[in-house]
Formats: sequence, structure tokens, C-alpha cells
Amino acid sequence: MKINENYKNLAESYLFSTIAKKVNEYSTAHPEAKIIRMGIGDVTLPLCEKAAEAFAAAAKEQGQAETFHGYGPEQGYDFLKDAIRDYYAGFGVSLASDEIFISDGAKSDLGNILDLFDVDNTVLIPDPVYPVYMDTNVMAGRKIVFMDANVENGFLPMPPKGQKADIIYLCSPNNPTGGVYSREQLKEWVEYANAQDAILLFDAAYESFIVDDLPRSIFEIEGAKTCAIEFCSLSKLASFTGTRCGYTVVPGDLMRGGMSLRKMWLRRQTSTLR
Amino acid sequence: MKINENYKNLAESYLFSTIAKKVNEYSTAHPEAKIIRMGIGDVTLPLCEKAAEAFAAAAKEQGQAETFHGYGPEQGYDFLKDAIRDYYAGFGVSLASDEIFISDGAKSDLGNILDLFDVDNTVLIPDPVYPVYMDTNVMAGRKIVFMDANVENGFLPMPPKGQKADIIYLCSPNNPTGGVYSREQLKEWVEYANAQDAILLFDAAYESFIVDDLPRSIFEIEGAKTCAIEFCSLSKLASFTGTRCGYTVVPGDLMRGGMSLRKMWLRRQTSTLR
Repeated sequence: MKINENYKNLAESYLFSTIAKKVNEYSTAHPEAKIIRMGIGDVTLPLCEKAAEAFAAAAKEQGQAETFHGYGPEQGYDFLKDAIRDYYAGFGVSLASDEIFISDGAKSDLGNILDLFDVDNTVLIPDPVYPVYMDTNVMAGRKIVFMDANVENGFLPMPPKGQKADIIYLCSPNNPTGGVYSREQLKEWVEYANAQDAILLFDAAYESFIVDDLPRSIFEIEGAKTCAIEFCSLSKLASFTGTRCGYTVVPGDLMRGGMSLRKMWLRRQTSTLR
Repeated sequence: MKINENYKNLAESYLFSTIAKKVNEYSTAHPEAKIIRMGIGDVTLPLCEKAAEAFAAAAKEQGQAETFHGYGPEQGYDFLKDAIRDYYAGFGVSLASDEIFISDGAKSDLGNILDLFDVDNTVLIPDPVYPVYMDTNVMAGRKIVFMDANVENGFLPMPPKGQKADIIYLCSPNNPTGGVYSREQLKEWVEYANAQDAILLFDAAYESFIVDDLPRSIFEIEGAKTCAIEFCSLSKLASFTGTRCGYTVVPGDLMRGGMSLRKMWLRRQTSTLR
């Protein structure tokens, strides 16, 4: 039996666990200190009344033979996929419902999507960023190239000239810096990805916080449907905090190696979910 | 960009989709026929009243600031892990709560656990069995050896002499044959696995249907804690049908390649779940 030796390359501790440990140590030594926690974001406000009541009503439906539902479809209920499709239409992005896959939050899909790609791919990851992108690729043994996000580039790294990339992570609005790419910047990324047959993994988990005229979705950019997959979460919405519900958009036009990535993802879900 | 070429080796269609298609064709051609569906098991009875009410009450808790919970721990709440530990103690199996990992059903964990192992491992799979075991290994590109379950062996294949194995799937009670291994038979499997450093992936999803004096858990067998991981689901319980809640038991004593599999699994969960 051979184990996956790549696990030995994971840093000893997970970033958020390290932060929690350091905060605990400091607050024990300085019980009077008021600490602003910038680590893992736990939620502090309850669900809005309407959401909590709808959850409770749905749970009660399950207790009555007349209203009981069996297993739902692996890709999520149509009513929810259609509502997400309509939400995107509201800012000019046209999606088909079968390009939308409901998930239990962006985190698991961000890891699972990597199954579609070979180990022998070079991965571009901004630094700093949500540590999940790095860990899941270290576990698989992929080569990682970090892109520095700093004051000079406004915390928004742009395509590195002369650098080969196969899988590119972008998080906009960025966790943790808050930086948001403009349409012009994302257009550069889309052109870079298409030019070298790379895939953009676009994490839009915080799109609901955008109030200015900035892109909420990579699919606002022409050409993105042949190079991007988008991950989003409903758990950041003010009225839905912490609820494990998200979605992934895999365009029907996205092909690599002669295969439709949407069909590969559909097949993976059928074989491994629910 | 290189895709995971192993997806090309997946059979054109998922077993359960094929069955559904054939049933539809037949019932269209023979509308009078009464068909007993032996394919994917959808549930038909509602949750028991107590469970439905507890779900509804928990949902309402989330809508009040005083009772709202943030994100739960990746491995599940202690109250549930402790209850499962106590359930196992009831039939003589001693587990620590930190060996129990709550999941959203056995299916996703059965796929995810494979991340801990190298691609270069030989996998033993009974035939027929739940198709998830095969599909997830085909996707990863592992070598699969099937073990015929038939009338001659009472639908309970035993260790194949002279066959090397690294990862072994056992499903008892078996989906779909219903065959249940005896303690003596499982003892042979545990000895075989320990002797060649293999891992038994034991799917006990249907253990709640056992009424005779037959083993409910691989951990009833001496030596299993150094060679087995157990997957179980609460979604088969008569009062909890279809609810996506299960668990995986990874013993603290389970080591391979100098690594604790429990610690590897814990690390994978922290990096990819919730």
C-alpha cells in the first residue's frame, strides 16, 4: 500500500488553526486586550426571519407523507438553479441552468474541481489568498507559482509575462485583501488564459459585497466561457450567513483535451455526490 | 493544460442512469406492467415526527441572535460524535470520538478517502456492488481487480489467494445482494489485509438492518484497527430516510507509510470541508 506522499509536503499546520492558536496564547497572556480577529470568518448574526422560517417549514414538509421529498438531484433543485440563472441575467450574464451546479459551499467544489485536471499542470495562486487553493494542490502534488499581491500592484496581481500557467486562481473580491479586479484587468486575464489553454478558477464568493460598478462574475468578460469556471457561495449574504449553500458555474463551451469540462463535472457529481 | 485522461475510461453511462432509462423505455412500451424497481433507492416514507420537529426547531434557532450557531467544526459536533461512540460501545466496539468524522453521507467520503492513497495501488472490488467504488477509482486511474459474488460463494467473496491487494472494498450488508459477512469471514479478511499492508474500506451503510447475531462493524474483529476504515450512513434508518448524514471511522492506530491515516484525513477535512 502506497500512501499519497504529497501529504508530507503540507505545512505542519493549517493557516487558520495557527491564527486561532496564536490568538488564544495572546489573549491568555493579555486578558485585558481587545482583539480584532482577522482569521477564519465565523458569522455572528442570525439568519433573517424569513430564511429561518422557510428552513423550518421545509423540515416539517419532510415529516409528512404528502409533502415528503426523496433524494434531490445531484446538481441541485431546478428552482434554485433557475433563480441563480435569473440573478446573473440581471447583470447581463446569460447562463443555462445546466451550467449551474449547486454545492454545499464553495470550499468543497474548489477542491473537487481539481479532479478534472492532470497532476502535471502548473498552478498560479495569488499571495495572500484563501489557503484552500494551495493546500488542495499540494495534496495532489502540482507545481505552484505564487503571484505577489502588494501595495505596488494594488493587491491585484496581473498575468506574469513569460510564465506558463495551466490553472489560475483569481479571488475577486479578494479574501483577505478586499481587492476587486476591474473589467479591463479581467479582460487581460481572460486573454492570457485563452492564449495558453489555461483554466481560470474564479472565486466570486464575496460578489454580494460589490456596490460600485465592478464585475461580479468572470462571465461579464467576453471570452470567459472558453476559459473559466466560477465558484460562488450564498453563505456570505447578510441574511443567509454561514448557511452551507453555494454553486459552481461550468460553461457548456468549456473544452480541454477534446472533453467538455461541464460533462466531466456532471459525471463526477453523479458518481460521488448524494 | 492537461485534463485527467482517466475520465475517458469511465463507462459511457452511470449504472443507475442506465437502469432509469431502461425502466422508462419499458414502461412506455408496456404501460400496464407493474415494475419492481431494483435500481437507485429513493426513499418513500417521511421522516418520523420527532426528527422533523427537531430539524424545524434547529432551523428556528438559527434565526435568533441568542441561539444562532456559527460554522460548526469540520468533523461534526461533539454531541453527535459522542452519540455514535456510545452506539458502538453498545455492541462492544470501543472508539474515541476523535476517530469519528461526521459526513454528508457515505458517498462523498467513499470518494474523498481515496485522496489519501497513491494512484499506484491495486484495488479489490466485489461484483456486483455499489458502483461508486469502481467509478472513483477509474477516475483516479487505479488498477481494479473484481471479485465475483455469486451463488457458489453465497454472494460473499473471500480473499483471493495469490492476489496482491492494496485497497479492498467490502460492503456488508451488501448493496445490492443483501449478503452479510460472518465474524469468521471478516476475520479472514482482516488477517489478509494486515498480512499484506492493505486497507479495508468497509461500507456498513446498511448495518441498521441486521437483526441476527452478525457483525455490524468491521471493528468487532480483532486486528481491524490496524487495517480498516469504516463508512456508515444514518440515511438508511427507518426514521431518518434520505437525510444526508453519515460518518467515517478512521482508527488512531491506522498507520501506513509512516503516516497516521487519521491525521491525514483530519488535515484533508480542515483544508477542503466547510
